[in-house]
Amino acid sequence: MNVSGNEPQAQRVTISIDAMGGDHAPGMVIEGIDLALQHVGDARFLLFGREVELAPLVASHPRVGAHSEIRDTTDVVSSSERPSAALRAAHNSSMRRAIDAVAAGEADGVVSAGNTGALMAMAKFVLKTLPGVDRPAIASAYPTIRGRSVMLDLGANIDCNAENLVQFAVMGEVFARRVLGLKQPSVAILNVGEEQLKGNQAVKKAAEVLQHSDLAISFHGFVEGTDIGAGTVDVIVTDGFTGNVALKTAEGTSRLYTHFLREALGSGWRTRLGAMIARPALRQMRMRMDPRNYDGAMFLGLNGICVKSHGGTDAHGFCNAIKVAFRLIADRVNQGIKDDFFHIAGDSPKDPRIATG
Amino acid sequence: MNVSGNEPQAQRVTISIDAMGGDHAPGMVIEGIDLALQHVGDARFLLFGREVELAPLVASHPRVGAHSEIRDTTDVVSSSERPSAALRAAHNSSMRRAIDAVAAGEADGVVSAGNTGALMAMAKFVLKTLPGVDRPAIASAYPTIRGRSVMLDLGANIDCNAENLVQFAVMGEVFARRVLGLKQPSVAILNVGEEQLKGNQAVKKAAEVLQHSDLAISFHGFVEGTDIGAGTVDVIVTDGFTGNVALKTAEGTSRLYTHFLREALGSGWRTRLGAMIARPALRQMRMRMDPRNYDGAMFLGLNGICVKSHGGTDAHGFCNAIKVAFRLIADRVNQGIKDDFFHIAGDSPKDPRIATG
Repeated sequence: MNVSGNEPQAQRVTISIDAMGGDHAPGMVIEGIDLALQHVGDARFLLFGREVELAPLVASHPRVGAHSEIRDTTDVVSSSERPSAALRAAHNSSMRRAIDAVAAGEADGVVSAGNTGALMAMAKFVLKTLPGVDRPAIASAYPTIRGRSVMLDLGANIDCNAENLVQFAVMGEVFARRVLGLKQPSVAILNVGEEQLKGNQAVKKAAEVLQHSDLAISFHGFVEGTDIGAGTVDVIVTDGFTGNVALKTAEGTSRLYTHFLREALGSGWRTRLGAMIARPALRQMRMRMDPRNYDGAMFLGLNGICVKSHGGTDAHGFCNAIKVAFRLIADRVNQGIKDDFFHIAGDSPKDPRIATG
Repeated sequence: MNVSGNEPQAQRVTISIDAMGGDHAPGMVIEGIDLALQHVGDARFLLFGREVELAPLVASHPRVGAHSEIRDTTDVVSSSERPSAALRAAHNSSMRRAIDAVAAGEADGVVSAGNTGALMAMAKFVLKTLPGVDRPAIASAYPTIRGRSVMLDLGANIDCNAENLVQFAVMGEVFARRVLGLKQPSVAILNVGEEQLKGNQAVKKAAEVLQHSDLAISFHGFVEGTDIGAGTVDVIVTDGFTGNVALKTAEGTSRLYTHFLREALGSGWRTRLGAMIARPALRQMRMRMDPRNYDGAMFLGLNGICVKSHGGTDAHGFCNAIKVAFRLIADRVNQGIKDDFFHIAGDSPKDPRIATG
């Protein structure tokens, strides 16, 4: 998510950092914090990781040194580790200790670029879910022709039933309202066609519930894959399998397009001249598509702020994930989900847990 | 699929056309045939549709008139019609009659830009599936950084089990070998990660079968959404829900990129000058991404050639779908699937139907 505008001020925010998570950690983590400190003002960071590695990096980034504290941990959760194994064994890992700091009230939120499955399993175990939420979801903002929209779930829940999807719709709506600042965000379910008769049982049932319930949600119905880039709606709800594939397909297509563009503009002196003249504009366009500007996936539905940065991210992307965490804290998004979830769901005929049965 | 190289010669191929299918039918259909006749040589077309509409169109395209025959039909299957309803009622529709012509041996294949679900239901009912195939799949070629690859299923089967996915792998492999001309195409299953422990039950089981069976397939394992554009493998296997979303997400992202590019290159005199100079190269790049060049999705696994053109296609796209049908006929792809399916599957420990249970 590309966070712009007002950054949180006055109160001092503390973020715990899994300094060992990510392909390029811990180097990019420290540089990312250094970059973030140019935006987020008077922040404090708790750096969890191997002190022998972190100390020299912090020493060479005085601004980071002035705003952070190293907490020595021994283990690192690898990217291939099974979530269940990490949850059982990695109690002294940088990831686990960084999450523990949020549960203990030492930090206002945690940022990690480590193993997504392990981070979700640990965060769910340690922080628990918000009341009314069965399963947390991974959400992220992304660029569209209309501006930006949010999609969830992006991979936390491989198999989802209708009730899960309805809960994602509620959480996504709150997020779009609170963080993206939209008055009445439109919400749709991702499907293989717009007609009501299409799709699997889960999406059909979830759509029926959202269509006929008293939920205060502006429900659009179904959208298709093409509507993601078009920005047809503000919130797209889907299961974690489809959402993950869709997000990564968009990323891959964007890379393919960039590859074709580079090939096209590098062929022949005439084209190269044109490209040279148009360079600033082309650079600006690439920035608009740059996935690093949308780094920072939120784990929505947890009783604590947890932001996942891309595993292969660099300092620029990690900085953006930190800014996302700040925004979630500053906008009190979790309190919002808690309030609104009960408020919205309370209007439904049954109980705060949205019944689909 | 962008078909280039040798076109079928000598034997006269007959294609039956659902002349009323598609948003811009029948106008774009007749123009598409006119375009196709510049490439496919001495072909014959059976045009199924309302004669009062078709006759004047054909009259104004003498080349089409010389190579085609109108067969008057009364009904049109609408794009919103339920497949089951179309199958039951629309016996005298342009779509149904065009498929019947293949079953009757009057035509070598059928092309339609109409309702996908109805076309699949009718084609399956009328033409039946090839021996060993439980469910036909929709397959299409698409551009990648490495060249082009094929993906299936793109929407025929919303829920797929492991056995379906294994059969798709076999059909996709045959197609890539016979039509794309690859010696030993690599095949992978689309998933949310490359690690074996990821994904739902169907993909895990299908991967296990493909990994350990004696099938003569070069099985790569799992790939992710980013691998679609990267062209990591030649054949990507997935269920119809995920495949449909992935394909349309790629299409939407491509449009988003084009939109950003157009905005970037239209801003300021300096950029516009550069864009003007680089225009031929930019046009060439857009052509490489143009979905019309990949129009023509094949229904693999049917006992007859059936090609689906995009519902919103124009003459250029429909022409390409016709060329795809010609290529499938010329390369005797169905005979290939029949032979190879038995040959490949015959080596497996059980029987020609690939057992996964």
